[in-house]
Amino acid sequence: MMNIAVAQSGGPTCAINASLVGVFREALKVPEIDAIFGSVNGIEGIISNHLIDLKTLINTNEDLELLRQTPSTVLGSCRYKLPDSADDEEVYKKIVKTLKQRRIGAFFYIGGNDSMDTVNKLSAYFAEHSIDIKVIGIPKTIDNDLCVTDHTPGFGSAAKYVIATLHEIVRDSSVYSIPSVTIVEIMGRHAGWLTASSAVLHALGETAPHLVYVPEAEFSLDKFLNDVRNQMAKHKAVVVAVSEGTEVPEGVQSGVVDNFGHKYLSGIGKYLEEEVRRQIGCKVRSIELNVMQRCSSHLCSQTDIDESEAIGAAGVRCALDGGTGKVMVFRRVNDMPYTVVIESADAELIANEEKFLPREYINSEDNNINDIALSYFLPLIQGDLNIRMDMGIPKHFTIQESLLR
Amino acid sequence: MMNIAVAQSGGPTCAINASLVGVFREALKVPEIDAIFGSVNGIEGIISNHLIDLKTLINTNEDLELLRQTPSTVLGSCRYKLPDSADDEEVYKKIVKTLKQRRIGAFFYIGGNDSMDTVNKLSAYFAEHSIDIKVIGIPKTIDNDLCVTDHTPGFGSAAKYVIATLHEIVRDSSVYSIPSVTIVEIMGRHAGWLTASSAVLHALGETAPHLVYVPEAEFSLDKFLNDVRNQMAKHKAVVVAVSEGTEVPEGVQSGVVDNFGHKYLSGIGKYLEEEVRRQIGCKVRSIELNVMQRCSSHLCSQTDIDESEAIGAAGVRCALDGGTGKVMVFRRVNDMPYTVVIESADAELIANEEKFLPREYINSEDNNINDIALSYFLPLIQGDLNIRMDMGIPKHFTIQESLLR
Repeated sequence: MMNIAVAQSGGPTCAINASLVGVFREALKVPEIDAIFGSVNGIEGIISNHLIDLKTLINTNEDLELLRQTPSTVLGSCRYKLPDSADDEEVYKKIVKTLKQRRIGAFFYIGGNDSMDTVNKLSAYFAEHSIDIKVIGIPKTIDNDLCVTDHTPGFGSAAKYVIATLHEIVRDSSVYSIPSVTIVEIMGRHAGWLTASSAVLHALGETAPHLVYVPEAEFSLDKFLNDVRNQMAKHKAVVVAVSEGTEVPEGVQSGVVDNFGHKYLSGIGKYLEEEVRRQIGCKVRSIELNVMQRCSSHLCSQTDIDESEAIGAAGVRCALDGGTGKVMVFRRVNDMPYTVVIESADAELIANEEKFLPREYINSEDNNINDIALSYFLPLIQGDLNIRMDMGIPKHFTIQESLLR
Repeated sequence: MMNIAVAQSGGPTCAINASLVGVFREALKVPEIDAIFGSVNGIEGIISNHLIDLKTLINTNEDLELLRQTPSTVLGSCRYKLPDSADDEEVYKKIVKTLKQRRIGAFFYIGGNDSMDTVNKLSAYFAEHSIDIKVIGIPKTIDNDLCVTDHTPGFGSAAKYVIATLHEIVRDSSVYSIPSVTIVEIMGRHAGWLTASSAVLHALGETAPHLVYVPEAEFSLDKFLNDVRNQMAKHKAVVVAVSEGTEVPEGVQSGVVDNFGHKYLSGIGKYLEEEVRRQIGCKVRSIELNVMQRCSSHLCSQTDIDESEAIGAAGVRCALDGGTGKVMVFRRVNDMPYTVVIESADAELIANEEKFLPREYINSEDNNINDIALSYFLPLIQGDLNIRMDMGIPKHFTIQESLLR
């Protein structure tokens, strides 16, 4: 008999809790697994021995269904950067102490590429010290920027929200008779995946987004203004999708960095809005989809939620088969009919790496997305959950605040 | 036999097209009505004789179902302020010319309080000149600030989006272990209805929104900062809902005015974010729900859409019964079971007037909403449309751009 622990890390998505459900449901089926501990605030809960027994909180299948449709991380999150063990072994000793004291034989870490760095370091440390605790990474990020895997859990739901919302913004922006420009700023850090997904609207027969700017392409303000003028000659209401990480002249971005040395990106939409107003002088508005694009589970992709649960479950099986230092990944077999298989990859191939949009997805003018990309995006946004409602509003599964403090 | 015309005006909502469906479906049932003309860009289409024959564009019941779930105004919109006929009779003559040339016996104007001003002026002019053309107003606005009517078509869907999205933002904002403040700026112009609706979350067991500021209550920056500090003592992640129209120190709002002399309101969320950062120094984020709160029909209220269609249909019956210069209104008979009846009221009672939150809805500290308000809001957000999807995205009914130019 052994116990297991699971933690959630990094920025919220609609699918992190579905992966927790996958770990939980799969672990329940395994006779040799006893307690399923949730670590509060990611790896920080392991370091500080702040674990909660999930079986006491999740009592019914209905609880699991609610958890599947609840956005963000029910166990809290962190942006903790695990130091190298050579620099600071103390924290590793604390982790080992908690895991041994709680008789934990496998630890599942649901997170982005920074969390996969933790999986990599921790499993290497355990191997070095002959500690038999499996460490498995379950990927997640709306940015879709993890290597090896075809796509990341959470991306499909974010893309579905972005596309559907942009579709609605297109309707909203085109009502008046005067020409206008609407600039929508979309997340994704240094990768343009989420912004590029907005081009799915072309498959629905929309001319919008008329311009799409991703960090992987060349960008200049003069070219942008020229692109806008060209589109205004053709369309009354021009809609532009731009990645938060698109490189712009100095001074736009705040320069503040997080614990991983990443810059907080924000503000390009507002900046471009002001330049259009100043240099073109037409009606212009910028819209930040903000955190809604990562937490709007009321419009999640069923494919994404189902896959996110499945990849969590596959992580448990991987650990039971002796895997450690692995990250679970999707390999796409076919676009149509859409088929994926779940495999595992070495965490060191994924940790701290970023995957960018293929060049062939971006048009030669560097200002839109080619149709070839659509067969990649479309399968990921299919299907709708049967969302449980309470008083007209989607219901969430939560853990009382006092247990998380 | 006669023809009729219908137009849409003002800012988009999720329900304006449903009211158009109501007018269209009801008119189809009436043997004495022949053509149903849509006026492009509100009253501007009547002035310039830019009408389209809707029966040639809307061919099936499926078209109507799609139109019901399409946000914004399929016929375009305007913010045209009809002058007094004493000041400028020319425009009235153009309107009469179009209506007579097209043999239009009734004109239905779907819009907010400014459009009801048009209904009022036009019907008075027709009466004065013994012109037998009925003019009926069908209300709409997410701001819910029209007098006489219990609520306005479009408000329920906007409220449902605001409440559900705030719920998701609450999940998103509470993941990290450090204290934080999240400020959500909500539309509604000078009325706090939409912002106040966010308090429905309390009925779902949420402590958030911890603070709610509406234009009808007293506001001061010092008191706000003190309120935030008090809430931070109790909650790790404080969530604040604030109306765009909440009065703040000078210099925050842009001062730009539209054709009706209304100030464009925006920026209080950002302003309060900066003050919290500067004076409290904690993690803080502001979020503008922006146009999404008026066009996110993927999460509309079925009650709202059904009522919006019904009030459009009732407008047609009112005109056939000889009504003119009237605005259709809801009178609530009961909260639970929720019952409303549709009546008509004189347009002059509604034109240019605003309705504000009752004082008893606002708590004595001027920083939240009392539970007594919930029975008003709850019925308006109930039910979900069976949204038609295409490739994973809600489908829209549109009219080709060339016909709208």
